[in-house]
This record gives sequence, C-alpha cells and structure tokens, in this order.
Amino acid sequence: MQNLYDIIICGGGPAGLTAAIYCARGGVKAAVLERMNVGGQAALPEGIENYPGFSRIGGFELTDNMRAQAEGLGAEIVYDEAAAFSFKSRIKTIKTATGRDYAARAVILALGAGAKPLGAVGEAEFAGRGVSTCATCDGAFFRDKTACVAGGGNTAAEDALYLARFTKKVYLIHRRDSLRADAANIKKVLAEPKIEILWNTVAVEIMGGNAVERLRLKNTLTGDISELKTDALFIAVGQTPNTAVLRDTGVKLNESGYICVNAHMRANIKHIYAAGDCADGHLKQIVTACANGAVAATSAIQEL
Amino acid sequence: MQNLYDIIICGGGPAGLTAAIYCARGGVKAAVLERMNVGGQAALPEGIENYPGFSRIGGFELTDNMRAQAEGLGAEIVYDEAAAFSFKSRIKTIKTATGRDYAARAVILALGAGAKPLGAVGEAEFAGRGVSTCATCDGAFFRDKTACVAGGGNTAAEDALYLARFTKKVYLIHRRDSLRADAANIKKVLAEPKIEILWNTVAVEIMGGNAVERLRLKNTLTGDISELKTDALFIAVGQTPNTAVLRDTGVKLNESGYICVNAHMRANIKHIYAAGDCADGHLKQIVTACANGAVAATSAIQEL
Repeated sequence: MQNLYDIIICGGGPAGLTAAIYCARGGVKAAVLERMNVGGQAALPEGIENYPGFSRIGGFELTDNMRAQAEGLGAEIVYDEAAAFSFKSRIKTIKTATGRDYAARAVILALGAGAKPLGAVGEAEFAGRGVSTCATCDGAFFRDKTACVAGGGNTAAEDALYLARFTKKVYLIHRRDSLRADAANIKKVLAEPKIEILWNTVAVEIMGGNAVERLRLKNTLTGDISELKTDALFIAVGQTPNTAVLRDTGVKLNESGYICVNAHMRANIKHIYAAGDCADGHLKQIVTACANGAVAATSAIQEL
Repeated sequence: MQNLYDIIICGGGPAGLTAAIYCARGGVKAAVLERMNVGGQAALPEGIENYPGFSRIGGFELTDNMRAQAEGLGAEIVYDEAAAFSFKSRIKTIKTATGRDYAARAVILALGAGAKPLGAVGEAEFAGRGVSTCATCDGAFFRDKTACVAGGGNTAAEDALYLARFTKKVYLIHRRDSLRADAANIKKVLAEPKIEILWNTVAVEIMGGNAVERLRLKNTLTGDISELKTDALFIAVGQTPNTAVLRDTGVKLNESGYICVNAHMRANIKHIYAAGDCADGHLKQIVTACANGAVAATSAIQEL
C-alpha cells in the first residue's frame, strides 16, 4: 500500500509537532499532515512569555523551532489537509483535500481549534474588510486608526495591548463587568491609556460601506443601543475545535465538539488519539498541548 | 504572619519553575523552595533533544532559562529545603531544614524523584568512589578508563552513550534480554563499538580498595557468577519519588510513593497540588512536568 505510515499526525501545531518529535525519536515512520503552515494558532502571537524555556519568543519562531526539530529527527511534514477518515479497519485511511490517500497503523488527531464567531450582523460580510480574528495578523493595517476588540479573556487582553502600541485608540468590548484574563494581563490593560473598556457591552451589528465604519453596541444590563465609530473589530470570544471533519468517523466528541480522550490521550476508537486544542478536558496552553502530543505519541507507539 | 505567600511551590525542577511562571503571570505572590540548585534531575543531561522548541539543549541551560523566566516575571526562589509540613488549617505551613517558617494559602508539591538504588552489596560504601547515579555529573572522572552502567531504559542508554565518548570501554549491564529505551537510543547503543551489552546480568556486589575495582555479576538465567574489572558503576535502574517528607501530612500516596492527583493536579487535601516526577500516573518527561506545573498553578490560583 502506498503512503503507509506507522503513525499519521493530523495537524502541525505544538501538539502535532511534539507528537512528531516523539514518534521520530521512538523510531516509527511518522508524517504530519498540515493544511497550511505549521504552528497552528500558536504561530500567531507576537510574543509568548509563558512557554517554559524562553522568557519571550514569537509564536512563529517557537513553532518553527519545533518543526525544524521534528524534521531534523526524521519526521515528515506533508502540506495537505485531512479531508476524510476511515477508522473502521485495522489500517486507518485518510483522504486529503487534494485527493491523495494515506494509511497508518495509528492516527493522532491534533486538529487544533479556531476562533468562535461573535454572532453580530455583518460579521461574515466584513471579514477581511475590518473584521478579523487575528490581531497579530491584521493589526498592522490599522496603524493610527481606531480598533475594537470583542472579548474578555487573555486573547482579547493581549490583542488590545498589541493594538494599543500603534493604533490611535482601542475599545475593549466585553459583555461582563470583569475580565477573565490573567491578573498580569488585566493589570497591563488597565494601565494602558489608549485602551478604553466598554463593560457590559456587546457588538450586535457591524456597519460600513466597503469596510467597517461603525458598530452598533448593546448594553447587556440596560438594553440601551449606541453606535461607535471604528475602523476594525477584532473578535476574541473563544474557540471552536476543528473537529467537524470527524463527523461519521465514530470518534466520540463532547457536547462542545472536543474529542473525548482518557489520560493516555486515547480516543474511543483503538489506535486513534487526540492532543492539543481539539481534545477535551484540559488547560489550553502551548506547553500542555506539547505534553499532550508527547503522551499521545508514546501511547500510540506502545500500542502499535 | 511572616513569610505568608499565596502559593508556595516545593521544588525547583521544570514542574516547580513552570508553576512559578504561571503563578507570577497570574498575579499571585509565589515562592519556590529549592533545596539545592534549580532544575532538579532535568538539569543533569548534557543534551536534551525532545523538549519542544530546542533541537538540542543542555539540561542546565534549559532549566536555568526557566529559572530566569520565573524570576523575571516576579516569582521568588528561596534556597532552602521543606522539611516539615502542616496541611491541617486553611493556612498551610512549612518548616525548612534551616528552621525558617513559611505559610501559604496553597502548596504545590514538585518534589521530584531520585535514582533508585541497585541493591548491590557495597553500593553505599563505594558511593562517590566509583559508584554514581549521574553519568553527566561524574563521568568525566573516568576518562580513558572502564565504566559500567546498570539499567536498560533511556537513562541507562544515554549514560552509556555519554560515557562511550571519552572512556575506554563501557559495559551496559541489563537484567533482561532487551532494552526498554527508545528505538533511537537503542540504535545508537548498538552502533557504538565501545559499548558491550551484558544481557540477563545483574551486578550483585561492588568490590575494591579505596575505589571500585571489580563487580561480581550474576547471570539471571543460569545463576552463574563472574567478575568484571571496572573503574566505575553508574546506576540507572529507575526512580523513587522524593515524598518521604510527606509522611504524616495526610497527603495520599500510591503504593510506589507517588502523590495521587486528579486531572487538575489536585492532591487529596484541598489547596494542595502536585506536579512533575513526584506525582502519579503520567509520562515522566520534562515537557509533561512543565505542563503539570502549569495546570497545578492554574488550579491553585482559581481555588485560592
């Protein structure tokens, strides 16, 4: 059979790349299927300060280090997207978006997660024309302009701080009356004069001509509607796991779509594992995704 | 109360240092109690190739990076040993080996593990005079001499490879007929002409004058006894968690002495957590220890 591997890892973020490092050192034939660029969402942050070993490192640099490490150890990286799976037989098969067929004795699903939509009117229409889910990717387009960030967690706080460095003004729009970001991030946000927090507020509609011009805001306590002029809206309200492709595979997902795994990162089907942001029930951090990948690879190798 | 912290972390290896990084970024007052040097056992390897982000890095450098990162973020490191604990009241107290008292709202136990003894006659007597549990620490004393390594796992394989670079000859003494090291390590060991593997063999006695001169070996299949000339014996037969100090604290240990934790790294006592090599039930790797530390700190902060 062509393209037969011991282990195929779907997804080249920190979980998938660490699984590849452990597979390669474990002496098995392994490939990573990555649909775009390695690193996944972890490649996006401009500066990461909580990955142990680097006081501060860019997301691209950190994940590219992991890619070089995995390839240096002999893991193969294939730039193609897993589009359909068959997990019924002992040999698992994967068809990619470009029509290629892969087969493996075990599969590690490290599919990652993506930004959750806000649910505002005009969100899809203005995507790429002022609406973005990645401040590090698109922030630079709004130098000396006004930007809004929707959300109240670490990503929202970090996006607001990032944008404050070069935009004229940042509104942080949060539906609650307190941020759920880390204390360190909250402190920085509150100390940044360019950031104004709009508490108890949601953006219900995005308006403009060719690009974003205004938001219609709603106060979650009073129901009052107001308008706010802005050039951009960065959405940072959470994640959805990239597991839609697993429909009809028999892989058990929890009610939010995350892959159910045990402590060994095994899914409910023998020889299928999950790691990182697409797996359920753990803290979503780069270092925990890496640890997941190491555990999944070790389990997969032991059970080949 | 003097020396009152939000969170005290006992142990400054990768788990403890990562917990400190997450505590500091989480805005809580945290200190690490470390009895010797930060890094724990992870500081010892000359080259680490499976920590994601570094294709190869020395253990000292990696863990010193983590120390600098934790201190840079505001975590305190206290060089003293936790000698006695009281976990009964809401405020947990710790007495150190030098008689100082510390108090904290939560305690993260990242006590690490140490090398298991071999059980050979003369093992304690020749410790530091040819018997060692750390090839990276003591190997250099045996340049151009003969060294033995007892064990069959990754540590034993890596120790043998390390010693082969500058000793005259290395015997790898293993009680079974196959190594349980990673395939990558096994391949390297088998390809190294200076290493001779003595299968199905255990060292039962260490003999010599002022220093190690010979080992008495026993074949585990035939029971045959033989003697082998050597200048050193490096013991790499596994780990024991450093949890003896927890006797009478009420912290639940498993039958091997590891601290029982749930998925949030909580021990059986409220506000007590464990992470890294001293905690039960997980793959013992640097990256998993780090992930443990991140999870323990996040849980501890949330539940303060």
